[in-house]
Amino acid sequence: MVTVAVGTRPSPARPGEAYRGRGAAALRSLVAVGLVVQKYGGSSVADAERIRRVAERIVAVRKRGDSVVVVVSAMGDTTDELLALAQQVSPLPQARELDMLLTAGERISMALLAMAISSLGLKARSFTGSQAGMITDSAHGRARIIDVTPGRIRAALEEGAIAIVAGFQGVSQDTKDVTTLGRGGSDTTAVALAASLHADVCEIYTDVDGVFTADPRIVPHARKLDRVSYEEMLELAAMGAKVLMLRCVEYARRYDVPVHVRSSFSAHDGTLVTAKAAIQSTEETVEHAIISGVAHDRSEAKVTVVGCPDKPGVAASVFRALADAGVNLDMIVQVGSVSVGTASQAGRADISFTVPEADGAHAIQALEKVRPEIGFERTVYDEHIGKVSLIGAGMKSHPGVSATFFGALADAGINVEIISTSEIRISVVVRDSDVPGAVRSVHDAFELGGEDEAMVYAGSGR
Amino acid sequence: MVTVAVGTRPSPARPGEAYRGRGAAALRSLVAVGLVVQKYGGSSVADAERIRRVAERIVAVRKRGDSVVVVVSAMGDTTDELLALAQQVSPLPQARELDMLLTAGERISMALLAMAISSLGLKARSFTGSQAGMITDSAHGRARIIDVTPGRIRAALEEGAIAIVAGFQGVSQDTKDVTTLGRGGSDTTAVALAASLHADVCEIYTDVDGVFTADPRIVPHARKLDRVSYEEMLELAAMGAKVLMLRCVEYARRYDVPVHVRSSFSAHDGTLVTAKAAIQSTEETVEHAIISGVAHDRSEAKVTVVGCPDKPGVAASVFRALADAGVNLDMIVQVGSVSVGTASQAGRADISFTVPEADGAHAIQALEKVRPEIGFERTVYDEHIGKVSLIGAGMKSHPGVSATFFGALADAGINVEIISTSEIRISVVVRDSDVPGAVRSVHDAFELGGEDEAMVYAGSGR
Repeated sequence: MVTVAVGTRPSPARPGEAYRGRGAAALRSLVAVGLVVQKYGGSSVADAERIRRVAERIVAVRKRGDSVVVVVSAMGDTTDELLALAQQVSPLPQARELDMLLTAGERISMALLAMAISSLGLKARSFTGSQAGMITDSAHGRARIIDVTPGRIRAALEEGAIAIVAGFQGVSQDTKDVTTLGRGGSDTTAVALAASLHADVCEIYTDVDGVFTADPRIVPHARKLDRVSYEEMLELAAMGAKVLMLRCVEYARRYDVPVHVRSSFSAHDGTLVTAKAAIQSTEETVEHAIISGVAHDRSEAKVTVVGCPDKPGVAASVFRALADAGVNLDMIVQVGSVSVGTASQAGRADISFTVPEADGAHAIQALEKVRPEIGFERTVYDEHIGKVSLIGAGMKSHPGVSATFFGALADAGINVEIISTSEIRISVVVRDSDVPGAVRSVHDAFELGGEDEAMVYAGSGR
Repeated sequence: MVTVAVGTRPSPARPGEAYRGRGAAALRSLVAVGLVVQKYGGSSVADAERIRRVAERIVAVRKRGDSVVVVVSAMGDTTDELLALAQQVSPLPQARELDMLLTAGERISMALLAMAISSLGLKARSFTGSQAGMITDSAHGRARIIDVTPGRIRAALEEGAIAIVAGFQGVSQDTKDVTTLGRGGSDTTAVALAASLHADVCEIYTDVDGVFTADPRIVPHARKLDRVSYEEMLELAAMGAKVLMLRCVEYARRYDVPVHVRSSFSAHDGTLVTAKAAIQSTEETVEHAIISGVAHDRSEAKVTVVGCPDKPGVAASVFRALADAGVNLDMIVQVGSVSVGTASQAGRADISFTVPEADGAHAIQALEKVRPEIGFERTVYDEHIGKVSLIGAGMKSHPGVSATFFGALADAGINVEIISTSEIRISVVVRDSDVPGAVRSVHDAFELGGEDEAMVYAGSGR
């Protein structure tokens, strides 16, 4: 039933060339030499030895003829160490100064990487986010990219140098202050630069081999996906796959940047994220739905508003109260007149939704404030839940998918508390202790596994 | 015989006001609020605890009403740790990337200091060298300041904020690359900012109480100087006093910036460096020469060119060869027809000079290359020497000074190998083992000592 292409793409002699094969032939004739943007995370440059190894990998790509831009995160635990220092001098550090502090991390790793490359005989030059033209708004700690003006990067590439760029950081348009992009910021830097420079591919190096059909720690024979579409990757990221942050995938989709997620500890190809990647790859697609994989997320909690009056506008009032309080509630919602878990009066309904655990207390507070006005009975907060999601293109037009999905959960004796679906996803909320069993049974039912056990590296799953 | 004013200056209620007392009354009426530039070295901000203590000191000054600009070095051993990392990834790191790397150090300390000040309730904002307008040439690792354009610092001060500026760093005018100013760079940053902002004083906080009449580790009853002139400070710095770098004093003199060298570990006044500071301070000056102190330096070596032909132009050829090789030889030179230490042929002379030990091998190499052409016999290299210098204004017009100086050395049985003098200095080269005895005997002969033993802090003398 699984139709992800395996082994149909020839191993590229030159990355740039290989990725240009994805699209217009016209592009190939325009771009004389390929341009590859690579991003290395903190664990890939955690010490001098690893920095030297990454430098060798970059040099090998450059020597094959492609231009290379490298985006790098801070070394290993540097960011945590700097945060700890900040806590020691101030209980509530200002966001502007925190950004100034944290950006020292990438400054160190990028300079060291440039030195390591130079010592291998190639030209390399490092650039801060500001120097690389990452223009952002002024929201310190979670700045949004407004514009990318990589003039200095282009100049370095034209001189034949490898450009090393600090990930995660930028400069605010209004105040010219140093900003940071927040979680997953370095991936976003890489994709934004790749888009602005019209790179052939953005390679995201991490400590796992790519995107898997399920978390290999739960499903040992989970299979690495060779290709996945932006839409599927968005759902995977939103539903708990940690390998790429949602925001970075959104950026890649908007600017149609091919993203190659791969391991910095091996030479294997990883997972290529592109527009509708898997569809045309095999003949089987006309017959079967294409299932990408099973994602799970245990970081959310369930809030139930018990005994809402069964009349129009009540649900809207509940969600308006939460929105006004800035609570980021999940799309997964079920409104039923049958009470979830507790008995309710006739003519009343329960509303359940999930929120990030961090927002839980805030959500309950916001709801209790409007209880008299809305007239519901009480709120129930439950942290012991998990989400399990099946993601795949063309799911909606294959009714058999839902039947197989819920059949697998029923066979495993797993109780489903909330259901949510999209064009390419089915998600359920289950007890958190049921998450591993649910992932395994769904993964097996769709025959997503490979022959071998997946390689899991030290520190994987970050 | 010593006439440095002690205790004649009232202890200032507000630093800005106190220092304005030094000069034109007109200035006082123009400057409504004082402006103090303070510089804290690496040992003053070595950990979170010390950063908090420095923050308290800064806040106290600000609360007295003066505007404050703070220049800060990297925390403790950060620079050395970063250099060690660079060595691990590259045997010969590029100067541009080394500057990028090292400037992370001040970025960390300045952000932490700004946070610590904010947590005490005052506004603080940190600025990189580039943001502070420290425009330099492109000589990475030893950049020269070309211009200072502190628009953002002025804006921060106008908003009532304390401006924290990264020492040691700037941005190159041509390439817009990050540069560092080399040794003593943070002091130079502070003085350059003070000059550009027309500050009332530049306070250099260090781990000793100020400038002493001699190194307190050699002369326990050495006395702290309350005031010293730029010229004397220049000679002291050039002759081995480590407390202020030569370059920073040169800058201060050129722009007439009063520099107050003081300890960050005590509340005592330190040493004020200004134009002709000591001259008018007491009645005694008309009668006596003003001796500032005794400096020493053991970091040089002596090179002797033995048996030079005694004819015109030989010395010039020797020094041209050294200059062409970029050897930074000391001004102290003695050309004698009497050989130094070894017997020479009649009609031949020896030329001796001192060089920094690091340049020694290079100097010998350069000389050996021109030996056939010049026709001298051989070169002798001697690391076991030290320089001892007596510094004081008006020395030249007091012949008694030389007599007392050489008499003291003779009484102590110390052999003098080279002599050099300037308007305000007498220097001699002696055996390195004779340095402590020479310093003590000269210090005693001029009665430079105080009643008490000088306070020496852990790590002093840097």
